Amino acid sequence: MPKIELYTYFRSSASFRVRIALNLKGIDYEPHFVHLTRDGGEQKRSEYLRLNPQGLVPTLVHDAQVFTQSLAILEYLDELCPYPPTLPKTPQDRAYVRSLAQLVACEIHPLNNLRVLNYLKDTLKQSEDLRLNWYRHWIHEGFQALEARLAKDPRTGTYCHGDSPTVADICLVPQVFNAKRFDCSLSAYPTIERIHESCMNLTAFQAAAPQKQADAE
Amino acid sequence: MPKIELYTYFRSSASFRVRIALNLKGIDYEPHFVHLTRDGGEQKRSEYLRLNPQGLVPTLVHDAQVFTQSLAILEYLDELCPYPPTLPKTPQDRAYVRSLAQLVACEIHPLNNLRVLNYLKDTLKQSEDLRLNWYRHWIHEGFQALEARLAKDPRTGTYCHGDSPTVADICLVPQVFNAKRFDCSLSAYPTIERIHESCMNLTAFQAAAPQKQADAE
Repeated sequence: MPKIELYTYFRSSASFRVRIALNLKGIDYEPHFVHLTRDGGEQKRSEYLRLNPQGLVPTLVHDAQVFTQSLAILEYLDELCPYPPTLPKTPQDRAYVRSLAQLVACEIHPLNNLRVLNYLKDTLKQSEDLRLNWYRHWIHEGFQALEARLAKDPRTGTYCHGDSPTVADICLVPQVFNAKRFDCSLSAYPTIERIHESCMNLTAFQAAAPQKQADAE
Repeated sequence: MPKIELYTYFRSSASFRVRIALNLKGIDYEPHFVHLTRDGGEQKRSEYLRLNPQGLVPTLVHDAQVFTQSLAILEYLDELCPYPPTLPKTPQDRAYVRSLAQLVACEIHPLNNLRVLNYLKDTLKQSEDLRLNWYRHWIHEGFQALEARLAKDPRTGTYCHGDSPTVADICLVPQVFNAKRFDCSLSAYPTIERIHESCMNLTAFQAAAPQKQADAE
């Protein structure tokens, strides 16, 4: 298989997702580090913008093709290397697992992205306290809904869906990392905490963690 | 095929996406209208929250199973009724089309959702002008990146990818509707405007438009 290159930043949770998926599938990759805050943000350099005009990480390059958007990359990796699968078999279960992943990736994460926090600070002149409240508000909104679904759905197992990790876990774990980094209490979300712990027992998740990356500070 | 029911709100762009996909696939469905602003929001009623604990629209019910998150529903409909396809054939092209859809669904739309605008207004006490700037800012950020990709990618055709509509167009069109509703100038995005027009020549897109719904005001 042609080499896979990943443009990543240790703290980016979208990059973290892709690192987990690559590890779960046992795919070797060459990382390129894009520092999101140094020198005004290396993701804004013209060299990087040519690859990814949005100036966001991650970007994956494989076989001379450029892939952006972490959820699209997760689907691509599952189609490229179907084993071990990161999506269940039936269309119903696939939709369920995707909806859990999207609850995190479309409802929580976009609101707490660096560029959004910067807009709140620089343009709307919001204080650090109000920005922190914002951050925690969207985590609690999302985690409440996710906990409600995971706690009552019979498909919940060791992981979000059954007993092998899926894209739902791949999205959940980086979001829990962010929540902890911003001191959000997770005591109201016992199922989320339990699943997070199960995931972090796996080498694929451990090796993808921010502090394990070569660009970690 | 068992009956499909869709909990929808005429102005919700995530509902609009699912209505387009159902129409493109020629799937009959029974709409249930959830008014997002009347009486404090019908999506917050316990009856609806039992179906969708996040209190968001759309929710799709099929064969006694409940489906949430519009992108997951689009994938489900494509797996359930593969013809006409709304995703291309190769993993590379599928990833590309999904990334365009997600550029809208993960980078623009979540920031301009009603609940976010309400937070800016009620909690952060931001004026109508500042809220409008916020709204337009995220549309322009996203559309600039999307236009850059569509304008230079050789796969761009009548639609975002080639000459038949995909999930990328299904996400793009409701976002253009929102942009127009909030008086965003689209003159910097000629490719987006052209594709939007191509889509709106199709009955499937026309019939899904907000003003054509039975709950339109």
